[in-house]
Amino acid sequence: MKVFLKSDINMRVKAFNENNLETVYDSPIAGGGESSATSPMEAMLQTLGACSYMDMISILRKKRKTISDFNMEIDAKRAEEHPKVFTEVFIKISVISPDATLEDIKKAAELSYNKYCSVAAMFKASGCRLDYSCEIISPSEIITK
Amino acid sequence: MKVFLKSDINMRVKAFNENNLETVYDSPIAGGGESSATSPMEAMLQTLGACSYMDMISILRKKRKTISDFNMEIDAKRAEEHPKVFTEVFIKISVISPDATLEDIKKAAELSYNKYCSVAAMFKASGCRLDYSCEIISPSEIITK
Repeated sequence: MKVFLKSDINMRVKAFNENNLETVYDSPIAGGGESSATSPMEAMLQTLGACSYMDMISILRKKRKTISDFNMEIDAKRAEEHPKVFTEVFIKISVISPDATLEDIKKAAELSYNKYCSVAAMFKASGCRLDYSCEIISPSEIITK
Repeated sequence: MKVFLKSDINMRVKAFNENNLETVYDSPIAGGGESSATSPMEAMLQTLGACSYMDMISILRKKRKTISDFNMEIDAKRAEEHPKVFTEVFIKISVISPDATLEDIKKAAELSYNKYCSVAAMFKASGCRLDYSCEIISPSEIITK
């Protein structure tokens, strides 16, 4: 796998994959950038969410479950000293589905975080603690809320 | 630090930081997606580049060096078995500057990869091998090429 980066304005950097699809990163203002795009550490955390999201969607589809909506909120703590690695990550998974059960979601999350998700495996191997919670909402519950 | 993810079409997912800036990820076609955006593993590799790029720009600016252009090419190998973590990463750094020396670039890279870069620290702590090379090109060399 190859990726490419090219300097843009100030601390901002443009990144490309082998298909030339672009993703832009910027440093927060506190780091000398302009907060004009997602920071590298925010994006690293998002890749953990995106990688496990794709695993879970794939697992739930194999079970022929309908996923109307899938949301994640990821909260992370970093070490105070350089290199300020992530030390604790909590992922809140919320799925809207007319037919999936909470057990289905929990099983998909467990398979992702303990077997398939490459990013989660690297976070855990680095010493970062990783926890998650799962919630399932049926479309009828939303209508009554 | 918090980030948020929301399902989009098929395996595609939209991610947001706390300032609501959006980054989109998609699964490769081989993984059931449509390769419409950078994949989570490509993006994870890009965050390694972007994080160290920002360190290096910051270090070189403190030395009052002018950086006309800064490019990175990152090549990575993954494990064959699930969870298919990154096992080896090579970063090729190429800087165009009228006044920075190769030693300046090497020193900035060394400080980033061994002290400041959070992403690099997590890659290394996970067991991934990380190597890099540095190249400096003066603007006059480009003109004569």
